[in-house]
Amino acid sequence: MSVSVIGTYHSDFNTSDKSIYDLLVEAGKSALDDSGVKAKDIDGIWIGNYSGGGFNNQEHLAPYAMNIDPELRFTQSTRVENACASGTAAIKEAKAAIEAGEVDYALVIGVEKMTTLDTKGVTKTLAMASYWPDEGAEGMTFPGLFAEFAKGYKKRHKLSNDELRETLAKIAAKNYSNALENQYAQMSKDWTYEDVLNLPEKKNPMIAEPLRLHDCSLVSDGAAAIVLTTTEKAKELRDEVVELASLVQTTDYLALDKRPQDEFVATKEAVRQAYNQVGITVDDLDFAEVHDCFTIAELLAYEAIGLAEDGQGPKLLDDGTVMVDGRLPVNASGGLKAKGHPVGATGVSMAVLATRQLLGEPVGPKIEGAEIGLTLNFGGSAVSNYASIYKLIK
Amino acid sequence: MSVSVIGTYHSDFNTSDKSIYDLLVEAGKSALDDSGVKAKDIDGIWIGNYSGGGFNNQEHLAPYAMNIDPELRFTQSTRVENACASGTAAIKEAKAAIEAGEVDYALVIGVEKMTTLDTKGVTKTLAMASYWPDEGAEGMTFPGLFAEFAKGYKKRHKLSNDELRETLAKIAAKNYSNALENQYAQMSKDWTYEDVLNLPEKKNPMIAEPLRLHDCSLVSDGAAAIVLTTTEKAKELRDEVVELASLVQTTDYLALDKRPQDEFVATKEAVRQAYNQVGITVDDLDFAEVHDCFTIAELLAYEAIGLAEDGQGPKLLDDGTVMVDGRLPVNASGGLKAKGHPVGATGVSMAVLATRQLLGEPVGPKIEGAEIGLTLNFGGSAVSNYASIYKLIK
Repeated sequence: MSVSVIGTYHSDFNTSDKSIYDLLVEAGKSALDDSGVKAKDIDGIWIGNYSGGGFNNQEHLAPYAMNIDPELRFTQSTRVENACASGTAAIKEAKAAIEAGEVDYALVIGVEKMTTLDTKGVTKTLAMASYWPDEGAEGMTFPGLFAEFAKGYKKRHKLSNDELRETLAKIAAKNYSNALENQYAQMSKDWTYEDVLNLPEKKNPMIAEPLRLHDCSLVSDGAAAIVLTTTEKAKELRDEVVELASLVQTTDYLALDKRPQDEFVATKEAVRQAYNQVGITVDDLDFAEVHDCFTIAELLAYEAIGLAEDGQGPKLLDDGTVMVDGRLPVNASGGLKAKGHPVGATGVSMAVLATRQLLGEPVGPKIEGAEIGLTLNFGGSAVSNYASIYKLIK
Repeated sequence: MSVSVIGTYHSDFNTSDKSIYDLLVEAGKSALDDSGVKAKDIDGIWIGNYSGGGFNNQEHLAPYAMNIDPELRFTQSTRVENACASGTAAIKEAKAAIEAGEVDYALVIGVEKMTTLDTKGVTKTLAMASYWPDEGAEGMTFPGLFAEFAKGYKKRHKLSNDELRETLAKIAAKNYSNALENQYAQMSKDWTYEDVLNLPEKKNPMIAEPLRLHDCSLVSDGAAAIVLTTTEKAKELRDEVVELASLVQTTDYLALDKRPQDEFVATKEAVRQAYNQVGITVDDLDFAEVHDCFTIAELLAYEAIGLAEDGQGPKLLDDGTVMVDGRLPVNASGGLKAKGHPVGATGVSMAVLATRQLLGEPVGPKIEGAEIGLTLNFGGSAVSNYASIYKLIK
């Protein structure tokens, strides 16, 4: 049985005046409206949220979905958490429930409200997604963990400091440029590659050598939501339908020191399995939205999805492959770097972006004739990995 | 397609020297051993955990399951959270994945390590499972919320203070008595009804009028785990198999003031649906393990499962119905009151208890000839409700 998306919603990503409750309810209501499915027909709700406890003193967030519509009362509602991949984790559970024949229409909401805390608080709360005893508790942060990947990659592929810095700046600049057309994006700065590269130290300080401020994604509030059903039912409601053709999750060791620190091993495995399930290769993709929590993560993602051989990722920025008008636009939305990264919402945001792009009503630049897209969302230091393939069915 | 349990593990519930990581790994290893399923054949893992963030600074706990066995590396692993029902919520997701044909052998672990915090810290962390802005933030605690149920019940059914106190003491005493035979139980006190009723104020202080200390469940560390597969596969491995014949989840409003405070409305609905799915009534049950986070919750559960008409619950204690040798033993294990309540583990603990009872190797007193059992697990103030029916298949 196959599952498709029949409704989407995407909030602004920014520093919001709205509470996590209001973000959740607005997302749910709006996705239902967009889908045309009535609240009483929704028979399963999944909420992707990373740390309502840490950011908002609110665990057990899922039942708040009853406040979306009185007709939802008694509907099963479940919170799913796998760090920054909580959104896709929620989609995965909804998909399985539909495939099991248990649920006909599922509502999935990803939501996070992070700006309740100051930078120090956010950093600490995010660090709880690392292996706390050896990482978070020892002062390791996520910029620090991804700095290890950057150093590992540089060493393995014998890049100079400048070569690495230039590559990462190209990624940041591409994503800033793409986000200019994304109405929901948190950043709207027409900074070129030269601008990013030449920012004064004060405006682009070192966060965790070799990663600078402009290598890091943003602290954001936001929500996104989708309605899922069987492709069969979706086809009754729509002429064109976006199918979630595959969603594969792989897991690696939580602690980074148990794994290579120069590539995304489990991520690669998730993508490989997803391609196999659909019977495609990277050559069949028309776009990809990947988890650029740090610019180095996007670089490693190029290689994890098979777009470049190991160590060849940087060339894709020079030959234009990953640019919005290139062979495979990556993060046409601006990515986490520029659109923002309310962590529990990010996976669902990617699903919304893929769906709208395939329907020809993109958030951000349009990719003409797009029929197949990949989303790659992960939690932790590439620990909980989710590769999803979305496909237009006419 | 039907799903069955083929391996179980239950840790001691107590104040443990072990970390949450050790509890998780021991539970996973032991359930795998008990099942006979090899780690390499496990293709899905679900972790029920309420607040690793609040208690242990550890969100994103699911990937730690990779440390159970190197052969598990890359296996999907997902944390599920719905307050004190997180364990059953995890079982539900595993069941759906098997029914969807996505997973053949699932490992489900419920775990919580609460004693890292002092009483004040535990109370605050648990209060994050209430609707924070109007409840937790306003100083409302879970004893306070369930006190509202106790007051509502007393008023609606015109009980005197003494009548209510006596009923609740009978529940506590029954559960203390039952736990004497439960090797994993946190409390082992041969306190009779008279003992509990006559405890001096100092030893049984008022926590939230009318609930006293001995009306409250315990603060515990612990873990429980099960291995699930299709009933068909289970039958190939075993002569006698315990089927998870139904698992229904219903949700009510998170905020208690949006609901009646004298009965468990959504809980009743979950049980009704579960009975219907299996085609049974309360008369077909041989035992029940219910969510007695407070003694008043067990009383309301009697009525929610249809064992007594509204307001008639207290009689079941006098006529012996719910006693271990009665018509329908309730909490033969000692329940949350006496066995302990490591919140994320509780739902999986109930699954282990039901399975072992049906296989004739009970944790706690044996119920001769038991063939069908109910578990009732909820999160929050009866907000996220899960009714499960376990059935012996010979």
